[in-house]
Amino acid sequence: MTDISTLGEFGLIAHLTREFTPFHPTTLKAIGDDAAETKPVRGRNQLVTTDLLIEGVHFDLAYMPLMHLGYKAVVVNLSDIYAMGGTPYGITVSIAMSSRFPVEALDELYAGIRHACEAYGVDLLGGDTSSSKQGLILSVTALGDVEEGKAVYRSGAKPTDLVCVTGDIGGAYAGFLILDREKKVYIDKPEEQPDLTDYEYVIGRQLRPEARKDVADWLKQHDIRPTSMIDISDGLASELHHICAQSSCGALIYASKLPIDFQTVAVAEEFDIAPSVFATNGGEDYELLFTVPIADFQKLKDIKGIAIVGHITPDKGLVQLVTESGLTLDLKAEGWNHFK
Amino acid sequence: MTDISTLGEFGLIAHLTREFTPFHPTTLKAIGDDAAETKPVRGRNQLVTTDLLIEGVHFDLAYMPLMHLGYKAVVVNLSDIYAMGGTPYGITVSIAMSSRFPVEALDELYAGIRHACEAYGVDLLGGDTSSSKQGLILSVTALGDVEEGKAVYRSGAKPTDLVCVTGDIGGAYAGFLILDREKKVYIDKPEEQPDLTDYEYVIGRQLRPEARKDVADWLKQHDIRPTSMIDISDGLASELHHICAQSSCGALIYASKLPIDFQTVAVAEEFDIAPSVFATNGGEDYELLFTVPIADFQKLKDIKGIAIVGHITPDKGLVQLVTESGLTLDLKAEGWNHFK
Repeated sequence: MTDISTLGEFGLIAHLTREFTPFHPTTLKAIGDDAAETKPVRGRNQLVTTDLLIEGVHFDLAYMPLMHLGYKAVVVNLSDIYAMGGTPYGITVSIAMSSRFPVEALDELYAGIRHACEAYGVDLLGGDTSSSKQGLILSVTALGDVEEGKAVYRSGAKPTDLVCVTGDIGGAYAGFLILDREKKVYIDKPEEQPDLTDYEYVIGRQLRPEARKDVADWLKQHDIRPTSMIDISDGLASELHHICAQSSCGALIYASKLPIDFQTVAVAEEFDIAPSVFATNGGEDYELLFTVPIADFQKLKDIKGIAIVGHITPDKGLVQLVTESGLTLDLKAEGWNHFK
Repeated sequence: MTDISTLGEFGLIAHLTREFTPFHPTTLKAIGDDAAETKPVRGRNQLVTTDLLIEGVHFDLAYMPLMHLGYKAVVVNLSDIYAMGGTPYGITVSIAMSSRFPVEALDELYAGIRHACEAYGVDLLGGDTSSSKQGLILSVTALGDVEEGKAVYRSGAKPTDLVCVTGDIGGAYAGFLILDREKKVYIDKPEEQPDLTDYEYVIGRQLRPEARKDVADWLKQHDIRPTSMIDISDGLASELHHICAQSSCGALIYASKLPIDFQTVAVAEEFDIAPSVFATNGGEDYELLFTVPIADFQKLKDIKGIAIVGHITPDKGLVQLVTESGLTLDLKAEGWNHFK
């Protein structure tokens, strides 16, 4: 194992970024100068979003392999660009780590970052590298663009609009619960090998989420223009509250309509929690939540992989769930309160 | 004092960013959506740069007031945009902090960030807020633009080009030494009040650096087009090595030509170190280092605030200093090795 200090800061940066080559001819200068330079595409606006990932707060290296972490750190940022109806073209990645990480560990992390860059066609445009006092810190900024006047905000939902969700939700949280349980088992009995075959899908959702780069194309192809859109990072309830707050409306959704994978349901039952709780309050699925005018119902109803889960109401800030048994409950915006 | 947990993540973001309003009509969407949206100016390319600042590595809250830290965190990023010949228009700011920081402390930090935004005319476009396991972490990304074909890279220096430095250098390092000494005195004898009146300039250089937003205008006004440019964040020696590495050349500079403030010289003497060492190896001055064709000598020589410190040589990678006594020494690219 190679100690980071043998390379020095500039040597380390050169080493970690040596296999990154820009995909876009519009990337005029990537890594290696004071700033990266890109040429905007005529008729498109710029998008920027950023996320900070802290060891022990956002991820646990006990069960998160570094390659997956690198991949996920990129994907969660790209997801925000797609949630604007945009296309990402570049990222910057800053890392800080304590000296316990050898160069080989960082190689794993950057392999994951590179895989994500390749999978989504984004260029590594810059970054910063530093030591930390404790643990690993990752800060990723994603840049993208969107056709002028076509960005989808959180603020355009109107009463009677349909509330739609891509893919399935709650799986990443189910995966987290399984991984967290197995970590505790491992601490007690390190000799026991866990059998995780029944949980592969949900663990994959937690460890290696994908951003929905396909949705914008789907929507365009079916001539559907969402009135509002957001990615589901903190959980459906929290994201619906964001849309309702910014659109000055409410929402009513139906537990029976929530798209939940059977493996997620099985885990929910194992933990004796209603699957709808996983779907509404579990975060990190990185699916898209969007609203469309009710007139688009015919266009939407047969698209595989999009679930219509409810509708927008005029009741400002009131987000409610109709349970399978017919009860109507207020959904709170739990999100993650890292400070509690 | 208000505990952060009383606000929650979204409440905290809303609180901290409530007084930020965009300056630019091209900022179509700032904080509050999945991503910010800006409209590029026709004929200009995009620039992006990012920096990570970690408590205990990059700053010490024992002598760095939070308001200054916020200001400096922005300025060091803007400096990189100016070093490309560009103009910054926006930033994102992510912070992570342990629960020991009350809301009032973060208010101070954001007041500094806001002052910098106002002083340099940049919009706060987004960010992320999280808890940390230990200390304060700041990640700032700056966005800017530059006229197509006019970005100044590190790679264009040619033999015989003049090496120029703006303002004066070494002061920020002198300020750091004084602050560090006073911190140790304070730990030993907390009742003693330090008298820092003789050090105000150098302490200001350390705590509240400014980015050289005026230089691009100067150069344009005098019809000077640098062949390469970089900002001095790690020290003149380190930055010259970057230019020489990317321009495949060497450099020879003269100790007698280095622009050093008299207060910096006084501190150097107090610490029994040659002032040229402060100037070549002290970082964080955020002045600009650039090269110009020797044909521009007449245009340059009378501009106040620009020092011609040497010239570019054909000796690839060889950066040398001629001391006041006439000795020629190799200058090493020390930079900061955070990992040692």
